[in-house]
Amino acid sequence: MAKLRWGMIGGGEGSQIGPAHRLGALADGRFEFTAGALDHRPEAGRAYAQKLGLAADRSYGDWQEMLAGEKDRNDRIDLVTVATPNATHFEITKAFLEAGFNVLCEKPMTMTVEEGEEIVRVAEKTGRICAVNYCYSAYPMVRQARAMVRAGEIGKVRLVVTNFSHGHHGDATDADNPRVRWRYDPKMAGVSGQFADCGIHALHMASFVCDDEVERLSADFASTIASRELEDDAMINFRLSGGTVGRLWTSSVAIGRQHGFDIQIFGETGGLRWMSEQPNQLIYTPVGGRTQIIEKGEAGLHEDAQRLSRVSIAHPEGFPLAVANIYCDLADAIAGEARDGLPGAEAGVRSMAAVHQAVASARDKGAWVDARPPMFR
Amino acid sequence: MAKLRWGMIGGGEGSQIGPAHRLGALADGRFEFTAGALDHRPEAGRAYAQKLGLAADRSYGDWQEMLAGEKDRNDRIDLVTVATPNATHFEITKAFLEAGFNVLCEKPMTMTVEEGEEIVRVAEKTGRICAVNYCYSAYPMVRQARAMVRAGEIGKVRLVVTNFSHGHHGDATDADNPRVRWRYDPKMAGVSGQFADCGIHALHMASFVCDDEVERLSADFASTIASRELEDDAMINFRLSGGTVGRLWTSSVAIGRQHGFDIQIFGETGGLRWMSEQPNQLIYTPVGGRTQIIEKGEAGLHEDAQRLSRVSIAHPEGFPLAVANIYCDLADAIAGEARDGLPGAEAGVRSMAAVHQAVASARDKGAWVDARPPMFR
Amino acid sequence: MAKLRWGMIGGGEGSQIGPAHRLGALADGRFEFTAGALDHRPEAGRAYAQKLGLAADRSYGDWQEMLAGEKDRNDRIDLVTVATPNATHFEITKAFLEAGFNVLCEKPMTMTVEEGEEIVRVAEKTGRICAVNYCYSAYPMVRQARAMVRAGEIGKVRLVVTNFSHGHHGDATDADNPRVRWRYDPKMAGVSGQFADCGIHALHMASFVCDDEVERLSADFASTIASRELEDDAMINFRLSGGTVGRLWTSSVAIGRQHGFDIQIFGETGGLRWMSEQPNQLIYTPVGGRTQIIEKGEAGLHEDAQRLSRVSIAHPEGFPLAVANIYCDLADAIAGEARDGLPGAEAGVRSMAAVHQAVASARDKGAWVDARPPMFR
Amino acid sequence: MAKLRWGMIGGGEGSQIGPAHRLGALADGRFEFTAGALDHRPEAGRAYAQKLGLAADRSYGDWQEMLAGEKDRNDRIDLVTVATPNATHFEITKAFLEAGFNVLCEKPMTMTVEEGEEIVRVAEKTGRICAVNYCYSAYPMVRQARAMVRAGEIGKVRLVVTNFSHGHHGDATDADNPRVRWRYDPKMAGVSGQFADCGIHALHMASFVCDDEVERLSADFASTIASRELEDDAMINFRLSGGTVGRLWTSSVAIGRQHGFDIQIFGETGGLRWMSEQPNQLIYTPVGGRTQIIEKGEAGLHEDAQRLSRVSIAHPEGFPLAVANIYCDLADAIAGEARDGLPGAEAGVRSMAAVHQAVASARDKGAWVDARPPMFR
Ligand SMILES: NC(=O)c1ccc[n+]([C@@H]2O[C@H](COP(=O)([O-])OP(=O)(O)OC[C@H]3O[C@@H](n4cnc5c(N)ncnc54)[C@H](O)[C@@H]3O)[C@@H](O)[C@H]2O)c1
Ligand SMILES: NC(=O)c1ccc[n+]([C@@H]2O[C@H](COP(=O)([O-])OP(=O)(O)OC[C@H]3O[C@@H](n4cnc5c(N)ncnc54)[C@H](O)[C@@H]3O)[C@@H](O)[C@H]2O)c1
Ligand SMILES: NC(=O)c1ccc[n+]([C@@H]2O[C@H](COP(=O)([O-])OP(=O)(O)OC[C@H]3O[C@@H](n4cnc5c(N)ncnc54)[C@H](O)[C@@H]3O)[C@@H](O)[C@H]2O)c1
Ligand SMILES: NC(=O)c1ccc[n+]([C@@H]2O[C@H](COP(=O)([O-])OP(=O)(O)OC[C@H]3O[C@@H](n4cnc5c(N)ncnc54)[C@H](O)[C@@H]3O)[C@@H](O)[C@H]2O)c1
Repeated sequence: MAKLRWGMIGGGEGSQIGPAHRLGALADGRFEFTAGALDHRPEAGRAYAQKLGLAADRSYGDWQEMLAGEKDRNDRIDLVTVATPNATHFEITKAFLEAGFNVLCEKPMTMTVEEGEEIVRVAEKTGRICAVNYCYSAYPMVRQARAMVRAGEIGKVRLVVTNFSHGHHGDATDADNPRVRWRYDPKMAGVSGQFADCGIHALHMASFVCDDEVERLSADFASTIASRELEDDAMINFRLSGGTVGRLWTSSVAIGRQHGFDIQIFGETGGLRWMSEQPNQLIYTPVGGRTQIIEKGEAGLHEDAQRLSRVSIAHPEGFPLAVANIYCDLADAIAGEARDGLPGAEAGVRSMAAVHQAVASARDKGAWVDARPPMFR
Repeated sequence: MAKLRWGMIGGGEGSQIGPAHRLGALADGRFEFTAGALDHRPEAGRAYAQKLGLAADRSYGDWQEMLAGEKDRNDRIDLVTVATPNATHFEITKAFLEAGFNVLCEKPMTMTVEEGEEIVRVAEKTGRICAVNYCYSAYPMVRQARAMVRAGEIGKVRLVVTNFSHGHHGDATDADNPRVRWRYDPKMAGVSGQFADCGIHALHMASFVCDDEVERLSADFASTIASRELEDDAMINFRLSGGTVGRLWTSSVAIGRQHGFDIQIFGETGGLRWMSEQPNQLIYTPVGGRTQIIEKGEAGLHEDAQRLSRVSIAHPEGFPLAVANIYCDLADAIAGEARDGLPGAEAGVRSMAAVHQAVASARDKGAWVDARPPMFR
Repeated sequence: MAKLRWGMIGGGEGSQIGPAHRLGALADGRFEFTAGALDHRPEAGRAYAQKLGLAADRSYGDWQEMLAGEKDRNDRIDLVTVATPNATHFEITKAFLEAGFNVLCEKPMTMTVEEGEEIVRVAEKTGRICAVNYCYSAYPMVRQARAMVRAGEIGKVRLVVTNFSHGHHGDATDADNPRVRWRYDPKMAGVSGQFADCGIHALHMASFVCDDEVERLSADFASTIASRELEDDAMINFRLSGGTVGRLWTSSVAIGRQHGFDIQIFGETGGLRWMSEQPNQLIYTPVGGRTQIIEKGEAGLHEDAQRLSRVSIAHPEGFPLAVANIYCDLADAIAGEARDGLPGAEAGVRSMAAVHQAVASARDKGAWVDARPPMFR
Repeated sequence: MAKLRWGMIGGGEGSQIGPAHRLGALADGRFEFTAGALDHRPEAGRAYAQKLGLAADRSYGDWQEMLAGEKDRNDRIDLVTVATPNATHFEITKAFLEAGFNVLCEKPMTMTVEEGEEIVRVAEKTGRICAVNYCYSAYPMVRQARAMVRAGEIGKVRLVVTNFSHGHHGDATDADNPRVRWRYDPKMAGVSGQFADCGIHALHMASFVCDDEVERLSADFASTIASRELEDDAMINFRLSGGTVGRLWTSSVAIGRQHGFDIQIFGETGGLRWMSEQPNQLIYTPVGGRTQIIEKGEAGLHEDAQRLSRVSIAHPEGFPLAVANIYCDLADAIAGEARDGLPGAEAGVRSMAAVHQAVASARDKGAWVDARPPMFR
C-alpha cells in the first residue's frame, strides 16, 4: 500500500496545532510528509521543513510558492492541510481546491458566510475533498454515540446539552499579553471571540451526534473581562431541524476547567454523555434503567467506533489519535471509500453562519435568528 | 437545654419530603416533635401523627384545627413546618405567622408574586421568623463556598453556572401517571413546571453563594414531551446586581442524571465547583494554580462550614443533614442568635418573581425582563 | 409507638464518635436519650448530660453509678451504647449484659480473644442483644451488595479485596502528639495499631458482604514511622471458609487518602465495588457485560437496602445515617424482629482473634495462621 | 534530521501489541519502518510487511533471515523491536545484540533469570542498547512522579502500593478458549501466569517511580478458576533497598476492572497517585495540605514530563503515545543522548528474578525471599 503524499501550510515551529497534525497524519502510516510552507517567515518555514525531513525543493517559503511548485508535479501531494491563522484559511483553501488538491482546513473554515459558501461551491465544482478539522467528532466514542443515535438506540432526540469551557483566559493580569489579546480584538479575530474559537466545536458536535442541522438560535454573549471587545463567555440556545432542543455554553474564563468539553444527548428512550477529558468512555442510560459505561474497544461497538480505535479496551487513546482518525477517513476518502463521518465544507459554512447569527442575536438581546447559511435555507 | 417544640403540616405517610423534615428537625436533638396535621385526610393524619409518637390532642385533622389548638397553649409549638403541596403554602404560612408562630415553609413559598410580597410584609410586621427550605444552601461546603466568595478568596465573581437536571420524568409512557402529570398541568402546578420545581433551588443557590441578587433574566422553555403544557426543560440566562453573568439549566428529561444539581462560580482570582451528589467536597482552583479539593471537616474552614458539620473529615454527611442544618439555624434564630445563612421570606418572593418573569420571557421569545419582585425594584 | 429508652457511656463533649451515636440513635425517632455516663471525669459527664437534656438523676458520674441507678428502675433504659476507650469495653459491656441490658458496643469489642469469647457466652446466657458497631456494614448499598451475593447474583465469590487506608497519621512531626501517639503504643493500644483500629472494619466488611467467615490469614506489618512500636501499615492475605481469597490493606500513613475505605467483590459471574466516600452507589459488572451504577433508592433493590434508606434516589445519605441504621436494626431487634444484618458479639470476637493472629503472623514473617477464635474452630 | 531505520519482529496482522509499536515508532517521525519479520508464518509475515509498505527484500520470512539480510547492509536498521511471544525473546534479542543491533524487547525480556543475566552481559559487552518495553513508565505524569520523588518533593518514600488488575480472564466458560488458556498453562507460559504477564509492569513501576530496587518479597498466589495451574490472582508484599514498604496486587479475574493499573506513593511529606486509565493527571497531596491535581502540560513540570508530552494541557495523550515516548528516548539514546528513564536489560532481569522468587515464595507459604537476580545481590 503506497503511502499518500501529504503537505502542510502553517504549523511551524512552536505552533499550537502543528504537532497534532503531524502526529495525526503520520500515526497510521498512510501518509508521508512530503511538502510544506510551515511559517509566515519564509526562511524559518523552509528551515523547519527540512529539519522535519522534507526535501529542500519541497520546503517552501510560502503557500503561493508551494502551490506553484506542487501543482504540476507528477508526484504532487495528495492532501494539503491548512493550519494557518483563521483569516488566511479562505484564500489558501480556495486556491488549492481550484488547483485540484484535496484539502483539510482548520476550523473556522472561513471568516464570513459568503466565503464559506464559496468554498462549498468550489469543492463541489472541482470534485475535491474539502474537510474541516472538527477533530473531536473523530473520537471513537463520539462516533459510537452518533451511531447509537442513528440506530434509534435512544429514540428520537429531545435535547442536546454541550459545553466547551476552559479557564485559560481567565487571568485579567494576562489579558494584555498579545498571545491572548488578539482573540478578543475584532480587528484580528473577526466578529466573535470564544464562540468562534471553541464554541463551534461544540455546536458542530451537537449537530454531528444528533445527525441533524442547527436551524435557529438565540445567544447571550458576555465580556467578563472589561477590556475585551469580543465575548469570552457565551450561551447559545438552539433548535435542530427535527425539533431537538439545544443548549451550549462556552467560556474561556471558567477557572479550574482545563478542557471542559462535554456533550449530553437525551432521547425518548435513553441518555448519553461523553467528556473530552475521558474520551474513551461513553456513559449510557436506558430510560428507567441503570447507567452503564461503554468502553472504547469493548465487543459489539458500531463499525466507526471499532475501526477508529487502535489499541485494546482500557488502553486510552487521546487527542492526537482523534486527529489521526480524521486522516484515516481522509485516506479512505482519497482512496475512493467515502466516510460519512468526515466533516466537510458544508459543516464549515454552517459553523460560520451560526457564528455570525449568534453575534447578531446577542446584539439584539437574544432574538431568535435563523442559524443557517443562505444556501441551506 | 430544653428542646424547642416543633410542629408539622403535611409530610404524611408516604410523602416525599416528610421524612427529611423529621430527620432534620430531630437529628441534633434541639427540637421535639410535638404537634402535627400531617395529611389531607384528617383521619389518616391523626393516626399517623400518633404512630409517630404525638399526643392524641396534638395530632390534628387539619391545619385550621392545629392553629386553633396551638395558638393559646402555654406550651405551644416554637416552630411549624409547612410541607404541604405548593398551592396551600401561602394561606397556611400567613395564618401561622399572623398567629405569632415561626414558620419554615417548603419551596416554592407561594404561587404568585403578590402572595410572596404579602408573606414578606406579614413576617416583618409580626417579627416572626419565616424561613424557606432552600436546604441545599445549608450543606457545609456550600456555606464554605459562600464564605470564600464573601472573603474575596476568588475575587469579584464574573460568572456563575448552575444546573439542576434529572431524568426522572423522561419516560413518555409514564407521563400520564398522575404522580407525574400534575407537575406539567397549569391547573395544578401553576405557571411553571420544572423551573418552579427544581430550577429555583439552583437560582437561589447562585444568588446565595454569590451573595447578590438576580436582577434580570432571559428564558428559553421547552416541553420536550408534547403532551405537556408546562416546560420540562428550561435555560435561564441572568445577571446579578453586581454584574455577574449567570447561566442556569434545569431539566426533568435528562435521562441518566439522578440529581444533577451542581454549581460553578468563577471569579477574578479563582473558580469553585460543588456537586450535590458529592456534597462533602468543594473543588477550588486559584487562577494560574492547581485544582484543589477542599474537604468537609478539614482544618481552617470558615465558621459556617465548621459549625454545620457533625462528623469528622471524609465521613460523608448527606441530604437529611443539610435539612438538619436549616433546623440548626432555626433553633439558633429562635434562641435569638440570627444566622444570616438561613433563607427567609425575601428569598421566597424573589424566587416567585423569577419564576413568573421567566415564564413571561419564555413566552416573549427570550426577551430580557426584570427578575425582581416589585417590592425590591 | 412509644420510643425506646437509650443510654450512653462515653461519647462526652468533644469525643469523636459521640455525636454520630446521638445522631444515629435519635434520627429516626425510635429512641429517646434517657441516661448517660458520658465522661471519664464525673462532673464533666454529668454537666454535659444535662446540657444534652437528660434528667439530673440520670446524668451519671460513671458507669457503675449508672448501672446501679438504672438496673432497678421500672423505666430503665432499653439499650446502652458503650463508646468509651477500647480497654474499658469488656468490663462495661459484660456488666450491663449481666444486669439484663441490651448493649451496643463500639469496636473493638474487647482487647483479648478470651474476653471476646466471654462476652459471647454472657450474651447467650442472658439472652440480651450484644451488637458491635460495625456501622459501615449498615450503609444501604453495602446491604445491597450482601443481598446480591446471597442471592447468587455474582455467583460463587472468588476474591474479595478491601482497603481502609487514610493519611491522618502520616505527619512524623505530629507523631508525638498524645492524641496520635497512644495508638501506636502497646501499653495503651494493645497488640495492634492501625489494623485493630481500622483494619477490622474492612475485615468484618469482607466477611459480612461475602456472608462467610475468615478462616486463615497471613500478615505483613510495618511501622513506617520509626518511633512507632505498633504497625501503621498492614497487609493481610486471608481465606474465607468457602475458599474465597481475601486481600486487605490498611494504612494510616497514606497521605492524600481521607477515608479510603472500599471493597471489591469478584464472583464467578460478576463483580461489585463500593467506596465509603461515595456510599450511595454500588458499582456492578456482570461477567462479559458493561459496568452499571446501582443507586441507593432505585427501584427493585433488595429489602435491606430499601428499608435502610430514608430519602429518595440521588439524595445522598452519609455516615451518621449508617450509624442510624444500626439503631434501626436494634430497635427492631428489641421489638422482637431480629435483623440478621446486625453485627453481634460473634463478629466482635472474630475480629479480636483476627487481630491477635495477624500480630502473631506478622511476627512470624507472614506465616499462615488460623484466624478464628478457639470457640469457633 | 534523517530518520532512523526501524525493524520489527513479531507484531503481525491481528497481533495485540503490534499496532502500538508501529504507532509509537512512527508517531514522532523519528523512525522509518524499514524491515520486518512479522509473523510466525513466513508467507503471512512477508505479505503483511509489504502491505505495510516495506520493500520486498526487507519483508522477511523469519528473524534468522532478517538477521542475515540486515547485518551486512550499509543502510541496516538502527533499532529492532522484538514483539514475539515470550519464549522467543531471549534467543532473538541475544542474536541481534551480538550482531551489533540496538534492541527494544517486549516484556518479559526472558523466561529465566539465567537468560536475563546473559542478556545484561551481552548488552554490556556489545555496547548496544537493550531496552525493555515497560511502556507505562513513559507516560509523562509517571515521569513527573518519579522526578518529584527524586527531587525530594514527597520526602523519603515510606510506602508504595500498586495494582494491575483486570477482569478479562474472569469468565470460567471462556477459560478453555486457547487464547486465554495458554496463559495459565506452565508448558506455554512458564512458571507464572498473571504476575509475569501484568504484575511485573506494576513491580517495575514501583521501583521506577521510587527510584530504588526491589530487594525482598513475599507472595500469595491463587488460581481462582480451578482448572488453572498458574495463578490468576497474586499479592506481593515487598521491600525496596532503602526500606520502602511495597504492596502489589494483580488479578485477571477482577470483573469490572478494565485496566486497573494504578500506583500510590506515600512519602514523609506527601503522597502521589496515578491511574493508567486517566493517565494525564497526577494526584498530589502535601502532608497536612489539600489534594491537588497536577495536569500534563501545566507550567513548571519536570523536564521529562514536559519533553514527553506533545499537545497542550487537557488534551489527553494515551497509551500509544506512551509507547511513542519509549521510542523518543530510544531515538535520543541512539543519537548519543542517553535518557535515564529508558528501562534497560537490568530492569528486564530484575523482573525475571522477581517472578521466579515470587513463585518460590508462594509455594513456600509466603516465605520472604531475596527478589534480586544473583548478579545484583
Ligand atoms: N481543531 C482544533 O482543535 C484546533 C486547535 C487549535 C488551533 N486550531 C486552529 O488551527 C489554526 C492554527 O492555530 P494555532 O493555534 O496552531 O496557531 P499558531 O499561532 O500557534 O501557529 C500558526 C502557525 O502558522 C504559521 N503561519 C502563519 N501565517 C502563515 C502563512 N501565511 N503561511 C504559512 N504559515 C503561516 C505561523 O508561522 C505558525 O507556525 C487556527 O485556525 C486555529 O483555529 C484548531
Ligand atoms: N426542599 C426540597 O428539596 C423539596 C423536595 C421535595 C419536595 N419539596 C416541597 O415539599 C412540598 C411537599 O412535597 P412532597 O413531594 O412531599 O409532596 P407529597 O405529595 O409527597 O406529600 C404531600 C403531603 O402533604 C399532605 N397534605 C396535602 N394537603 C394537606 C393539607 N391541606 N393539610 C395537611 N396535609 C396535607 C399529603 O397528605 C401528603 O402527606 C412541596 O411544596 C414540594 O415543592 C421540597
Ligand atoms: N465505629 C466507628 O467507626 C468508630 C469510629 C471512631 C471511634 N470508634 C470507637 O469508639 C470508641 C471511642 O472512640 P472516640 O474516638 O470517640 O474516643 P474519644 O477519646 O474521642 O472519646 C472518648 C469519650 O469517652 C469518655 N470516657 C472515657 N472513659 C470513660 C469512662 N470510663 N466512663 C465514661 N466515659 C468515658 C471520654 O471522656 C470521652 O468523652 C473507641 O472504642 C473507638 O474505637 C468507632
Ligand atoms: N508492553 C505491554 O504493555 C505489552 C502488552 C501486550 C503484549 N506485550 C508483549 O508483547 C509480546 C507479544 O504479545 P501479543 O499480545 O502482541 O501477542 P500476539 O499473539 O497477539 O501476537 C504475536 C505476533 O508475533 C508473531 N510471531 C510469533 N512468533 C514469531 C516468530 N518466531 N517470528 C516472527 N513473528 C512471530 C505472531 O505471528 C503474531 O503476529 C509478548 O511478549 C507480550 O508479553 C506487551
